[in-house]
Amino acid sequence: MDIAVDKARLVRLMKEQASIGATEDGGLDRLALSAADGFARDWFVDQLHAAGLSVRIDKFGNIFGRREGVDKNVQPILLGSHLDSQPKGGIYDGALGIVAALEFIKTLNDNNITTEHPIEVVNWTNEEGSRFQPTMQGSGVWIGKYDLQKEYEKTDQEGASVEQELEQIGYLGNSPAEPQEPYEAYLELHIEQGPTLDAGDYSVGVVTGVVGLWWGAVTFSGEPNHSGSTPMEFRQDALVSAADFIIRVRRIASTLGPDTVGTVGYIKADPNSINIIPGEVTVTFGFRDPSDNVLDRAKAKVLCAAKQSAALEGVNWDWEHRSRDQSVQFAPHLIDMVEDVATSKGYRSTRLFSGGVHDAAHLASICDSGMVFAVSEDGKSHSEDEYTSWDDCYTAADTFANTALKLATPINNDHN
Amino acid sequence: MDIAVDKARLVRLMKEQASIGATEDGGLDRLALSAADGFARDWFVDQLHAAGLSVRIDKFGNIFGRREGVDKNVQPILLGSHLDSQPKGGIYDGALGIVAALEFIKTLNDNNITTEHPIEVVNWTNEEGSRFQPTMQGSGVWIGKYDLQKEYEKTDQEGASVEQELEQIGYLGNSPAEPQEPYEAYLELHIEQGPTLDAGDYSVGVVTGVVGLWWGAVTFSGEPNHSGSTPMEFRQDALVSAADFIIRVRRIASTLGPDTVGTVGYIKADPNSINIIPGEVTVTFGFRDPSDNVLDRAKAKVLCAAKQSAALEGVNWDWEHRSRDQSVQFAPHLIDMVEDVATSKGYRSTRLFSGGVHDAAHLASICDSGMVFAVSEDGKSHSEDEYTSWDDCYTAADTFANTALKLATPINNDHN
Repeated sequence: MDIAVDKARLVRLMKEQASIGATEDGGLDRLALSAADGFARDWFVDQLHAAGLSVRIDKFGNIFGRREGVDKNVQPILLGSHLDSQPKGGIYDGALGIVAALEFIKTLNDNNITTEHPIEVVNWTNEEGSRFQPTMQGSGVWIGKYDLQKEYEKTDQEGASVEQELEQIGYLGNSPAEPQEPYEAYLELHIEQGPTLDAGDYSVGVVTGVVGLWWGAVTFSGEPNHSGSTPMEFRQDALVSAADFIIRVRRIASTLGPDTVGTVGYIKADPNSINIIPGEVTVTFGFRDPSDNVLDRAKAKVLCAAKQSAALEGVNWDWEHRSRDQSVQFAPHLIDMVEDVATSKGYRSTRLFSGGVHDAAHLASICDSGMVFAVSEDGKSHSEDEYTSWDDCYTAADTFANTALKLATPINNDHN
Repeated sequence: MDIAVDKARLVRLMKEQASIGATEDGGLDRLALSAADGFARDWFVDQLHAAGLSVRIDKFGNIFGRREGVDKNVQPILLGSHLDSQPKGGIYDGALGIVAALEFIKTLNDNNITTEHPIEVVNWTNEEGSRFQPTMQGSGVWIGKYDLQKEYEKTDQEGASVEQELEQIGYLGNSPAEPQEPYEAYLELHIEQGPTLDAGDYSVGVVTGVVGLWWGAVTFSGEPNHSGSTPMEFRQDALVSAADFIIRVRRIASTLGPDTVGTVGYIKADPNSINIIPGEVTVTFGFRDPSDNVLDRAKAKVLCAAKQSAALEGVNWDWEHRSRDQSVQFAPHLIDMVEDVATSKGYRSTRLFSGGVHDAAHLASICDSGMVFAVSEDGKSHSEDEYTSWDDCYTAADTFANTALKLATPINNDHN
């Protein structure tokens, strides 16, 4: 059997949530644990109650709504995403996943469908990591990767702690911030935040996993001399070395693999004056690839590049490791299931790795996990220009709902 | 005839001035019109009085000491430099020129030498331009390049104006801030602030002029997308374009002339986050060359480079002109005179252009001007590490004094 979600209601729910913390230019300013995040959570809890779900809030503010299944001996299916946003984010990032899960529950209710497995819908606390670090804090605590007490004590730039702000908005719950039982599977819908689906004219994405990541920084140290009175051959220009390294990072990516990306996103030059040869320049680097072996091979190339970039200009260099996340492979039967649903519905889909991390990467460590990607126009995200057409929202939500239904195993459908 | 300045006194005078505004690490913090600058001026005025000179302070705080000549029909020789420093500057930049001029006057007095021409010693207000812009403000007002009233109104970062601060330290004088008569010549001693003399094992430099300068900025505008989910071929990375341009600036310098220098000293990337492809990057560029024709040819190359750097990464670009100073050629007979003096004294000298600007470049517009460079160890300047050995201070001061004596035309020497 399959179900059809209600497109008009999906759009209405999207618009409702988008009005909470709306910016003048059509985006969202709904930082984690802000007042706006609190109002969005209130709206979500109201929706869960209206759909007849039992609501629990855990000690880290993760909000769960539970719809019981028929079989008391099987494990729940978890469907989740996040309602918090970047400071000037779009209205789809995270929220579309929450709305799709709500719409799935409403559609089950409309059709009086009962399922074998219990179904839980979750809004994870602080996925974005803009106000409090790290990203994906709520799911990280819940799966036991982060310590609850340490994360409580994390503060924003004004010194407010996570614990204080959870209490302030009324979401410091009582339920343990950890699984109380095994879970059958976790499924998440998210916008792609990349251009692959849009550029390939696909209408939905089957996510096979999350790329691994390696972040670090290189500092070049030369001599900050007068830019007029120092002949070219006497210079130790740290910025020329850094520029050479930046170009090598772009080149290294293409020597590693077809899916590798390499980026220098941050640069700091000192003294940074038009009239002084830069004496010290720090740049970050970041590489991502679906294969951890590929990322392991990146290290030798990056260090070789930094050494050569420094030597050519006669400057010194040093580097530091910042972080390394292993890649995540989603459960093969879940990948197949998402793809089969999309195909059976006649949607043009493609398999792809996620270049960004998502709560599903955390959940993969405790149960079978999978993701559905909605199209991001031009791949824009973390921006008020982020856009997914209502058609594409519907296609992804419909694929998500029918996959979730298969996972939950329908028992009866009174109407069909 | 020639004279020999007193090395021990020269060193003593250098140490005296260096104690005013001294930093813990052996440098100077004597920003223009600060309390420390006021005390250094008091010390200078005391020295002028002790040497029997008549002192006048002009409306922009430039301090003149005058030693009359015998012939009332000939024009004065002007000898000058500056006592103000960078925030963490060295003890030689500017001050060595003031001390050398004082030492020359004291040596004339010691030897009862009278001269045909009057001699004036001047301390220019705010040469450095660190606290109030522009640089060389005092000499610029005096030669009529800058408007007195407008420069009075320039403020520092705390909002204090030049006029207020001149009054505060007691150096808002009454004498007109402009030449009251024609001048025969201007001579200035300064440290090189570059490595050429030190590297070539020269003991004194014969300055032939000041290089021309062209400053501008280029902004590259791409798309600030997610660094994980944007494949390499979809990127419009403004920082990669900027990096390519920075390397081209280094290369362009070598295509223009053997004396051309080209520098990117400043870079600003936005949003400057490890996890986002840089969307907008601005870099400054600066080129200097003794030939204005060479600088004119730089423009086409810089714009071509910016265009190509942008096109390769698919980003947009724009540029702005910041400033252009024509080069200055010092008076040939003064250049020859400095060189002849150095040679006759047995000092190993070389002709060189000044890569930095000096008050002498301003004075060249109203009278014959010339400069003597003292050795800068490793070319370090605008730094507490700035260093010139006492031997090199003496050699430059002795060359300077004997050149000044030739310009002033000695009339009699009672002792020799």
